[in-house]
Amino acid sequence: MDEAAIIERFFRHLGAVRTDVVLGIGDDAALLRPPPGFDLALTTDSLVENVHFLPGSAPRSLGHRALAVNLSDLAAMGAQPGWALLSLALPSIDESWLGEFATGLGRLARGHEVALVGGNLSRGPLNITLQLAGFVPAGTALRRSGARAGDEVWVSGTLGDAARGRLAVGAAVDASSAWLRQRFEYPSPRVALGEALRGVATACIDLSDGLLADLPRLASASGCGAVLEVDRLPLSEALVAAARAAPGGEPWQTALLGGEDYELCFTAPSAAAAALADIAARVAVPLTRCGALRAAGGLELRRGGDVIQFSQPPFGHFPA
Amino acid sequence: MDEAAIIERFFRHLGAVRTDVVLGIGDDAALLRPPPGFDLALTTDSLVENVHFLPGSAPRSLGHRALAVNLSDLAAMGAQPGWALLSLALPSIDESWLGEFATGLGRLARGHEVALVGGNLSRGPLNITLQLAGFVPAGTALRRSGARAGDEVWVSGTLGDAARGRLAVGAAVDASSAWLRQRFEYPSPRVALGEALRGVATACIDLSDGLLADLPRLASASGCGAVLEVDRLPLSEALVAAARAAPGGEPWQTALLGGEDYELCFTAPSAAAAALADIAARVAVPLTRCGALRAAGGLELRRGGDVIQFSQPPFGHFPA
Repeated sequence: MDEAAIIERFFRHLGAVRTDVVLGIGDDAALLRPPPGFDLALTTDSLVENVHFLPGSAPRSLGHRALAVNLSDLAAMGAQPGWALLSLALPSIDESWLGEFATGLGRLARGHEVALVGGNLSRGPLNITLQLAGFVPAGTALRRSGARAGDEVWVSGTLGDAARGRLAVGAAVDASSAWLRQRFEYPSPRVALGEALRGVATACIDLSDGLLADLPRLASASGCGAVLEVDRLPLSEALVAAARAAPGGEPWQTALLGGEDYELCFTAPSAAAAALADIAARVAVPLTRCGALRAAGGLELRRGGDVIQFSQPPFGHFPA
Repeated sequence: MDEAAIIERFFRHLGAVRTDVVLGIGDDAALLRPPPGFDLALTTDSLVENVHFLPGSAPRSLGHRALAVNLSDLAAMGAQPGWALLSLALPSIDESWLGEFATGLGRLARGHEVALVGGNLSRGPLNITLQLAGFVPAGTALRRSGARAGDEVWVSGTLGDAARGRLAVGAAVDASSAWLRQRFEYPSPRVALGEALRGVATACIDLSDGLLADLPRLASASGCGAVLEVDRLPLSEALVAAARAAPGGEPWQTALLGGEDYELCFTAPSAAAAALADIAARVAVPLTRCGALRAAGGLELRRGGDVIQFSQPPFGHFPA
């Protein structure tokens, strides 16, 4: 099965979704028609074997996650996704793997009206790199840098589920751990929430590396520091149950450190609380206030009214 | 040196080129302002170690080639390049390697007014994936599919140099082989030519896998076959001299089979010959007519008036 046949069989049907695709898979480049009056948002993210996932990981989950991590980046900008390119390096052709991978990618793509418009395929150690283009009304994108001291810090959904769910992959599972595992393998990027936050949130970032790593990025880009009340972190019942059944860190620690939840962390002035309650109801995603920005730099963690120290370094590919 | 420091030191300065970059490196996605009335052209291509290059390859050349292969795709569409994203998987941090890589990428990017606006960095087997966005006046892009039977087949520059030059990497070199090696390590994507061919060429493809593989793709997309006169293939003096000094296939065979020249192959009606001569002079790239499309499918090779058979399969990552 050569490259053209692989593309034809597994990927071409993922292109037939949108009317703004002038020319999709099959030429030297794709041609797209951006809507007038919109800024283009471009992002890319990779999944590398033995780094982002273990050998033998479910290919359907990998297809889902390869798109989800990029959708989450666009969500953090308040952008609407449109067109994807896929660069796939494969050690060999496994048709069953490719079929499952394309199914996972395709389901999420259809759910968000994303068209796969091009890419490339080569031999090599397994590397899944996806690029996503979307758009946002000119000048309205959410950035990391728009917050001010005094703005409140909010997060969507519940935190720490994916980190705990990663431990449940391949293990015997009860209902709680199956749900947590689902949160890791099939994250729900908060695209509708990101769009709804335009004009309401002052800054936004997606939680890929964990709140302890990502909130300081937002704060620092806004020229601020942050205070985080760890008692307020939103925890799922499943995470609390799993921590009770099999110790591995207190749930609030998992919520603080765990990456790959792909929830949004954003800031808004306190006057926005009612608008945020409306948005949470409309997009059916819980929103939780758990801190505030301050003029002094750094991240201060508070628990039960006390300032606490928490020194475990967050995830980094190339630690200093 | 963590990811943020690497990006800051080696890559951020490659973003400061264009006024249409609303927000470059450093947020969840880049924000760009496409010119009104243009279609967006998107492409991606990867360089994988042990597949597209050998371990120990000059990093400055890899930086150049990673962008050049994508510029060549946009050239084949007649598009003007604008914004690049870089996904880099690295086994470890080698500052000298990164500096050279960024130099090679940066020089070519500045020459084509390309801004690096984002990307990602992860640990993993060396994989260099670059995505490039550009634009073309709406409806004017060159495609593979626009040719008709009777259109003449043209190629730019000279062919086979890169394939021969690849053999000269690491070997003792004379002036000819140094020039051929330069053609392999630092190809010149034909961006200005591609733009000039809009409205003149009927179809276009870039020569990445070799004319024997790429011309049939253009012909087939246009619902045609092709006749190629191998005596007419443009050969550099250096290629002819190298073949004389050290056998390794006749030059016309190298020109036919050899990939990675990143020249353009395009079609035009015979009435366009004068316009093409003007374009060749204006962009300072020789153009050579070397065949024609025909209604009957397949690729017919002619040499000295005779039809010849030539069965060596062209390059493919996953041969059938």
